[in-house]
This record gives sequence, structure tokens and C-alpha cells, in this order.
Amino acid sequence: MTKIFNQPSEFAEDQLTGFLDLYADRLRGVPGGVIARRAGEPQVAVVIGGGSGHYPAFAGLVGEGFASGAVVGNIFTSPSATQVYSVAKAANQGRGVILSFGNYAGDTMNFGLAADRLRKEGIDTRIVLVTDDIASADAEDQRRGIAGDFAVFKVMGAAAGEGRSLDQVERLGQAANSATRTLGVAFDGCTMPGASEPLFTVPQGHLGLGLGIHGEPGIRDEPMPSAEDLSHVLVSSVLEHAPTGGSVGESRRVAAILNGLGTTKYEELFLLWGTIAPRLREAGFQPVEAEVGELVTSLDMGGCSLTLMWLDDELERLWCADAYTPAYRKQRSPIAAISADADDFWEPGAEQDVAPQASPAAQRLAGLVRDALGLIATVLQDNEKLLGDIDAVAGDGDHGRGMVKGANAAVEAVELALSNGSPGTASHAADGGSPGASWLLKKAGQAWAERAGGTSGVLWGAAFEAFGASLGDDSERYQPKDAVAAAQAFATAIVELGGATVGDKTLVDALLPFVDELTARVNGGEDLLTAFRHAAALASERAEATSELTPKLGRARPLAEKSLGTPDAGATSMALVLSSLADAELWKGKSWMLEA
Amino acid sequence: MTKIFNQPSEFAEDQLTGFLDLYADRLRGVPGGVIARRAGEPQVAVVIGGGSGHYPAFAGLVGEGFASGAVVGNIFTSPSATQVYSVAKAANQGRGVILSFGNYAGDTMNFGLAADRLRKEGIDTRIVLVTDDIASADAEDQRRGIAGDFAVFKVMGAAAGEGRSLDQVERLGQAANSATRTLGVAFDGCTMPGASEPLFTVPQGHLGLGLGIHGEPGIRDEPMPSAEDLSHVLVSSVLEHAPTGGSVGESRRVAAILNGLGTTKYEELFLLWGTIAPRLREAGFQPVEAEVGELVTSLDMGGCSLTLMWLDDELERLWCADAYTPAYRKQRSPIAAISADADDFWEPGAEQDVAPQASPAAQRLAGLVRDALGLIATVLQDNEKLLGDIDAVAGDGDHGRGMVKGANAAVEAVELALSNGSPGTASHAADGGSPGASWLLKKAGQAWAERAGGTSGVLWGAAFEAFGASLGDDSERYQPKDAVAAAQAFATAIVELGGATVGDKTLVDALLPFVDELTARVNGGEDLLTAFRHAAALASERAEATSELTPKLGRARPLAEKSLGTPDAGATSMALVLSSLADAELWKGKSWMLEA
Repeated sequence: MTKIFNQPSEFAEDQLTGFLDLYADRLRGVPGGVIARRAGEPQVAVVIGGGSGHYPAFAGLVGEGFASGAVVGNIFTSPSATQVYSVAKAANQGRGVILSFGNYAGDTMNFGLAADRLRKEGIDTRIVLVTDDIASADAEDQRRGIAGDFAVFKVMGAAAGEGRSLDQVERLGQAANSATRTLGVAFDGCTMPGASEPLFTVPQGHLGLGLGIHGEPGIRDEPMPSAEDLSHVLVSSVLEHAPTGGSVGESRRVAAILNGLGTTKYEELFLLWGTIAPRLREAGFQPVEAEVGELVTSLDMGGCSLTLMWLDDELERLWCADAYTPAYRKQRSPIAAISADADDFWEPGAEQDVAPQASPAAQRLAGLVRDALGLIATVLQDNEKLLGDIDAVAGDGDHGRGMVKGANAAVEAVELALSNGSPGTASHAADGGSPGASWLLKKAGQAWAERAGGTSGVLWGAAFEAFGASLGDDSERYQPKDAVAAAQAFATAIVELGGATVGDKTLVDALLPFVDELTARVNGGEDLLTAFRHAAALASERAEATSELTPKLGRARPLAEKSLGTPDAGATSMALVLSSLADAELWKGKSWMLEA
Repeated sequence: MTKIFNQPSEFAEDQLTGFLDLYADRLRGVPGGVIARRAGEPQVAVVIGGGSGHYPAFAGLVGEGFASGAVVGNIFTSPSATQVYSVAKAANQGRGVILSFGNYAGDTMNFGLAADRLRKEGIDTRIVLVTDDIASADAEDQRRGIAGDFAVFKVMGAAAGEGRSLDQVERLGQAANSATRTLGVAFDGCTMPGASEPLFTVPQGHLGLGLGIHGEPGIRDEPMPSAEDLSHVLVSSVLEHAPTGGSVGESRRVAAILNGLGTTKYEELFLLWGTIAPRLREAGFQPVEAEVGELVTSLDMGGCSLTLMWLDDELERLWCADAYTPAYRKQRSPIAAISADADDFWEPGAEQDVAPQASPAAQRLAGLVRDALGLIATVLQDNEKLLGDIDAVAGDGDHGRGMVKGANAAVEAVELALSNGSPGTASHAADGGSPGASWLLKKAGQAWAERAGGTSGVLWGAAFEAFGASLGDDSERYQPKDAVAAAQAFATAIVELGGATVGDKTLVDALLPFVDELTARVNGGEDLLTAFRHAAALASERAEATSELTPKLGRARPLAEKSLGTPDAGATSMALVLSSLADAELWKGKSWMLEA
């Protein structure tokens, strides 16, 4: 929806005021539109235009190597003949005027009337109509002009910038239009300033194939396809309508424009380009300096279009020429300056990833680590929804998913490391023996952090790495005190990295009491498993009690009140993991670890 | 809504694939992100990053004079420490690394861990945190980083491009961050790829003041203000939080960024800038090379933010320096080349707009023209809604509004012309006499076309001009045959300009039968008013009958079926106007026109 305006009826004028304020050093407002401030020798004036609401078309394309002036109509409304005349008169540098615009009835009339008036005054004026929209009519000269505007204007602007004559600029503009084809799709209609309803709509979950940029009906509505399928429709349709004959009839080099209509994001356009470019190449076409972005928009309309301009040598040179306008800037020199020989750089994978030699005890402990991680993954999978629901109360609800992804990644990393010499891995110990627990925990922690994402991912990952580093892989014997030290290292990593303390409503509220309790009990002579069980029970209790706290850190902080009455998701998952490790099955046959 | 994707979970990777395909000549994909291909001497590597979904932040800002590399996380998710490490290793040119990013917990941890690892390998690595969001915390160092990212990165990229040392680039980055303040507002939440509901929402008709770019809660929700009021909030809040002390404490020069979050259009941002810039100047601040556009977005989020960076000489030079990245390109040379002396251009108003001398008969006829136009305006006002409703069936529903605007403009133009010598007008006859009907009709037609807009506006305007030209202002007597000839000229102008014929479902379906009937009856000896009444009745009948036609021309054409059963709006308004002119009151006392 269009949201920012004062008087809706003054939208076009008001936006032009701001635009002209911003670019006062290079553009000049004149009655009816804008012209470029002049640099260098007089040249043919390429005057473009149409209704407002299509930025950067049209005023954003005025400048060096592009248009000399733009006529600015009301939103989606042709400028009047008087406006066109006024801008053309101001843009005229004595070498003649090209009026160029998309083929719409109102524009054709008003630019036509202005051309008559200019000619009567002795100003040689030519009209170059853009007719690129293959969805709008079978006859080429009856088609509407949409994003192909950009290609045609660019060619003429570059030709004028080269000092070409009016005849030549006109000829090149006509050639560019004849070589240009576009197909557009719409996902959503746009809303005029002040309106509460869109000007037109596309049925939910559908796209409008060939829908015009002012809502002119297209070919048909279709269920919204995947990006792959959308690129197929766009590429195959445009190629089907390729120009025949002339200097571009056999060309396999195409200027390409993937244009966003407004609310369709750059990321979406890049993603789509990632499937369009290979299709074009497979079909034998070479995209030349493609433009992916918002070039001819329609307020907040959703959708995009693919334009191809088949290139001969002359069109290609003009397409690739430098330009400098508010919305479009192109320079060959920075790219030309890139030196291939300065372009060597570090790539990962050069270092061999080899586990250090591990003591027999460390290798034995590795089995416990593997089993423990498996147990953790299971308990997190079982509680994924619970954790997500808790997190959704005052967070983004992705905690369960993140923990499961992290634990699964850790399990996979450990299995890979233990598969010792399987193809494509270098994860075997240097001496051919099995890796130790410390090295496995490092791999597990890295994988957890890498795949879980988010704050909890990096904390858990770093904690496992610290836990492993504390144990080391060279000990002859691992005792309960080593487990306590490792648990302390685990907690320290989280506290130092996350900066939270007890009472902040984070996982630390469960973790620190656990570590303190474990330490005290083991130091007091209790056996490790009993101590662990008591400490884990305390962690669960404290996790539960975080429901009385308000968050002090992170994204949840400003939602403090909403969070009251619900425990912290991170503390809950921590307590679940710790409790799962108190399971009797895990420790069966591993009494060597439990005895002091 | 985010619409284009294949597997939603692969969105970040897929969009990067397309992006790298597009910019393969200048960027290189590396594990974890992108780096710039190198040109020139080795320089300090400025590595920026964060989650995806903020394009052009972060990958779109990699290139000459800006970032050396960007780490690309998943959507709205910090990249892992491994990703940061990998990109920094690849971007490193042996002169040290700056890691810079907005202040979020996950980013701080992951970039921090990567910095530790890089330093362990002997790569001098510094961290520059961006903390510009004044809405996110009172303490400056706890604030989130939003669009101020752009300003801080730009300063460091320019400094690195100048060959500055790591110490200097770090110092300048810290200085830039200390000098930068942003306040954002949100109108709508964004939707993650594959999600059917937005990640967060803003109450209908409201804005979220200070809402974070991932939906982090802000200060409060407020009813959606006008652009004027919004600019007041943004400017006054940012100025209230101005940096104090240091080299910029007293500065009145500010780099300004008016950033769009996604669906907020360039036109809306320009409009808002049109009210922000004067406010800044009134407050004594000079905006320096302001940037208005999408620089740090959040998928399809609606909203914007104002960033100011207070400038000292050093920051100003770096802010204004050239840059060339996929999304941001700046060059001083084209602007410097503009020559003030080549910049003279035509402006309207130079010619005196003087009515030619009119015969007494033409002056008398002018009164009839004025009365007739008044009548036309009244009948159109009375039928505005009817015409709008008819037009809405298969058009955009603006026909009634356009006709009323045109008729009102014509009436105003005629009154102004007849006010003869009123201050500021030159619209009086050369001899001091009153203007003639022909000249009045020219003024009326021009005003109609200028203000009505659209296709019907230009047709009606041209028709009135042609009508007047046919009459001329030098006749000694105007007879019914002159009225018939003028009516024919009226119709000819519309047919020639619009290209429609009878049966196309346009105003021509009412107009041509009227003119033929009028001509036949007057030629047959009938008196003008009787002939006119019969002809107007026929026009109404034929306008009514257009409901059986399907449109052949213009925007309504593709809606052919929808249009069946409804008469054409243009034919209807034409018939209404013609019928209104058959009114007896109009002709009272004007028998001189009616007699042959």
C-alpha cells in the first residue's frame, strides 16, 4: 500500500519536489518535468516520459548517457501536450528532439500533439514508440511499452551522448524497439496514494500472466509457480517471440532486464535470475550485461518482467556504454581495472583436517560422546514443538527448530568423523586410530554452530568445543573431576560469549546452578551419576522458575511483559538436555567414567 | 509477501547464486559469502555482513570504494563464525581485516569468534560495531545497527580505498559510528519465503515507531501520520539524539540517508525527503550528498528510516568519495563536468499571451461560449458519480472525475480570460476589447486537456480548440452553417487524434451520429436549435446502445466481455454534454446565432 503522502492528489508534484531537491546539482525542474543540466557539446535531446508511479522511469533516467529530459505526468496518467512541449523546449539543444514513450493511447496523443507544435516552431522532432510487451497484442506495433522502455531509452541516450545526429538516434531507437521483447507477470495490484483498496487485484496464490503495469488485463491467471517454473514461462515465451530478420535476426547475444515492479524484492529477482541465466545459455543465448532490479515499476505492485533486446554490434556497444543518472549508473573503468593476477585468494580445504592422535582412554570416551549426542538429538526432536511454542510467546518461535538442526548436525559430524576414511573425508586420526572425544566434540560444536544458526547455535557450539578442549585427547584416564572441569568450561564459554548472568532469563539460569551443584556434590565425594541427577533436577527446577523473570538481554528484552509467566526457551532446552544425560542406559557399561 | 523461491529453506543460497552469476565480472563467491575481485594495490579488507534479506546490505555493497567482502548468513540469521572466518581469510590482502556489522547478539558472537581465530593465525583483525538505532536503547553502545550500517561501511570502504592503514580505517569507522544516528518507522511486517503470514505485524492504519528491521519491538505504535508529520518526528528525534563533543559535536553538515525498508516506494521516499530537507535546513543543518533509496532493507517490510551522520572534514571527504558496487555507484566526474554556462534553457512565459482583436460578433459569441461551458460543467458535476460507476465496470472508474476536472478548468480559464486585465494575467485582447469566442475556446480547450488528464481530456481539449479555430474571431456574422462546420471540426479532431470509428465503443459512437444528424437537418433548412435537439436525442440513443458493443480500442479492450451490457462512459458523457446544450435557457436572447 502507498503510505507516505500529504494530499493524495498532490502526490506526483510532491514526490517530484523531493526528487529535485535531492538531485539539484545535476537536474533542473522545468514546467512539466525535469531536464539534465548540460555538460559538453550540444546533443540530440532524448525526451522520455509518461505518467508518474514508475520510478526510476522516467525522471530517474535523466542524465549523462541517458535521457535529456523527462515529462512527469500525474500517477499512471499521460502528461499533457503542454507539459511535453515545455520539457522538450527546455531540453532542446538545437540538434533536434526525440520523444520516446511506451505505447498508450493518452501518451501517443499528447506527445503527438506536442511534436506537431514543436515542428511548427521549426524544431525537428521525431517520435520513437516503445512496443515491447508481447502479452498485449499480436501485432508488434500495437503492443504496449513496459520495461523495454529502459532498453530503448538507454540505446538512444548513449547514441545522443556519442554526438550522433537526430536521424541516427531515431534509427537506433527504432532498431532497439524492433529488437526488444518483454513478458511480465503480476503477483499483486498496486494502491494509489490515499486509496484503501488496490487499483486491481490478482487472485490469491496466483499470478497474472502478461498483466499490464497499470492493471491492463493480461493473458490469464495461473497458480503461483515455483521460481524454476516461472523462469521457464518467461524465457520460453520471450524467445518464442524473438525478432526475425534484420541485423539482429540471427543474433545470439541479448541484453537482458529482469525488472521488479515494486514490492518484489531484489533477493527474489536475484533468485529468479539464477534460474533464468542458465536457461538462456542452454538455449544458446548469451546475456550481455544483464540488469536485475527495479527499472520500470508500478508503485507497490508485485511482479516482475523479463526483457530481452537482441543485439547487433551497434546496439551492444550502446547498451554497454557508460551512463550516470539518479537511478542508473554504469562505468566500465572499475571493472576494467580488475587485475586477474592480483586475484588469488585463500580458499578453505587447503589444510588437511586430521584428528590428532588420541589416547586409548580418549578413544574410549569418544564412544560416550557419540551416545550422549545421540540422546541429546532425540530429546530435542521429541520436544521441538514444545520449545517452539514457548519461544513464540516472546520470540520468533524458531528455538526448537534451531536446537534440532544443531543437534542433528553434531550427530552427523561425529558419525562422519568416526567413519574413519570414508570417501571424501579426511576425518581420520593421523595414526589411523580412532579420533578422541575432544576432537569429536570440536567437530560436533562446529557443526552445531554452523547449522543451527542464531544465538543459541553459536553458544551451544562454542560450549561443546570448550568442553572438548577441557578434556583433551591425550589423557591416560578420565575421572569425574575431569567431567566437572569440562562442564565448567562449557558454562564459561557460554557466559563469556553471551554475556548473560543468572536472572537474565536465559539458558544460564539453568546451566550455572547445574554446574555449581555438580561441582559441589562431586567435590563432596558423591558419585558422578548421582551428582549429575541431582544437578539436572535443579536445572529443571530453575528453568521452570524463569517464568517469573523478565528478559534482560537479546531480542526478547523489549517484550518483557509478554514473557512473564512463560519459562525461557533456552533455559528449558538446556534443562531437557541435562536431564536426558542422567539417563541410566547411557551410562551402562561406562563405569570407568563414573568412578573417582 | 515473498513470492519467488524454490525451496524456502534454500532461499538465501539461491538468491546468492543468481547475484553471483550477475556480477561474476567483479565479485567472486567464496564459502560463506562474496569478495570483490581485486584492482590496484593491496588494501585493508573491510568485511561486512549479517543475515540475508537486507539487500543491498550486505553483498550489494562489495566493490571499489566500499566493502572488500560480505558474509552472507541465512535470512535474518547471523552467519556462523566459520563463514565469517572464511570470507575474511579470502578478502584479506595482507594489510589486516576490519569486521563490521550491526550490533545483534548472534553477529557479535560469531564475528567475535571469527576474529579470535583470525588473530590466532596472525591476521590483525579489528571489530567495528554499528550502533545507530536511537530507538533500541539509551546507552549508545547497546543500540542496534540499522541503516547507519551504510554510512559506517562507506566511510571505512573509502578509507581503505585511499590506502589507509588498519589503525586508521578502524579509527575512522569508530568515528563514523559515533557520529551516526538513525530512527526508523515500520508500516508493515515482512514475510519469510514460504510463509503465508508475516513475521510480525503493525496494527492497521498505524506505524511502529522505532520497530527493528527484524521486527524487534520499538517505542510505540502511532496512527499513521501525514508525510509532513512523519518528517517532523524523524527529524526532531534524530536531532535530539545528536552526538555531543568530538570533532563533529558542533558540525552542522550531515550526511543524510532516507532508507526504504522494502515495499515503501521511491516516490514515497522522495516525497518524504521533500519535507525532511527543508526541516533540516531550517534547523541549521546542511544535508550533504543525501541518499534516498533502499540501502538496508528487510525483505518486503514497509517503512523507512532517517539516518544522519554528523560530518567533520575527514568524514565528509570519505562520505563523498567515489564508489562502485552492484547496488551503490557514485562518481564525482559527471557532476563536475556540468558547465553552468551551457545551462541556459527555454522557459515558458516569455511569450505574451495576448488575445487577437475580435470582431463584435465574435465578442458577442464569446458570451454564449462562456454560458455553454458553465452548463457543461454543471451537467458533468451532477453526473460525476454516474460516469465513474459506468467507467468502473471495465475501466479505472476515473472518467467522471476527469470530465469534471476538465470542465471546471475550462470554465476557470474562460473567466480568467474575460476578467480582462486583472493583475497577473495577459489575457486581454490586444486592442483592449473583450476576447472573441475562438480564442476563448482555445484557452478552454488547453485548460481542459491540461487538467483533466487521460485520453478523454486530450480529446475534449483538442476538440474545443478545433471548434474555436473553425469559428475564428474575425467574422462579421456567425450563422448556423458556421456552427455546423465547427461541430464537424470538433468531431474531426477527436477522430483523427483518437483513431476510433463508429462501433469501437467510444465517445465517437455518440458524437458522429450527432454531427451527421445536425448537418443533415440544418442543410435541410431546419432551425439550429430544433436540429440540435434532434441530433442530441440521437446521440443519447446511440450512447445508450453502446452497451451492446465490446470495446475495440484503449485500456478497456481486453475487458471486452465484462463491458457488455454497460454503455461506454465516454459516449455517455458526450451525450450528456450535447443534451445539456439543447437547453432552452442557454439560447434565450441569443437568437442571432440560431437564424440562418
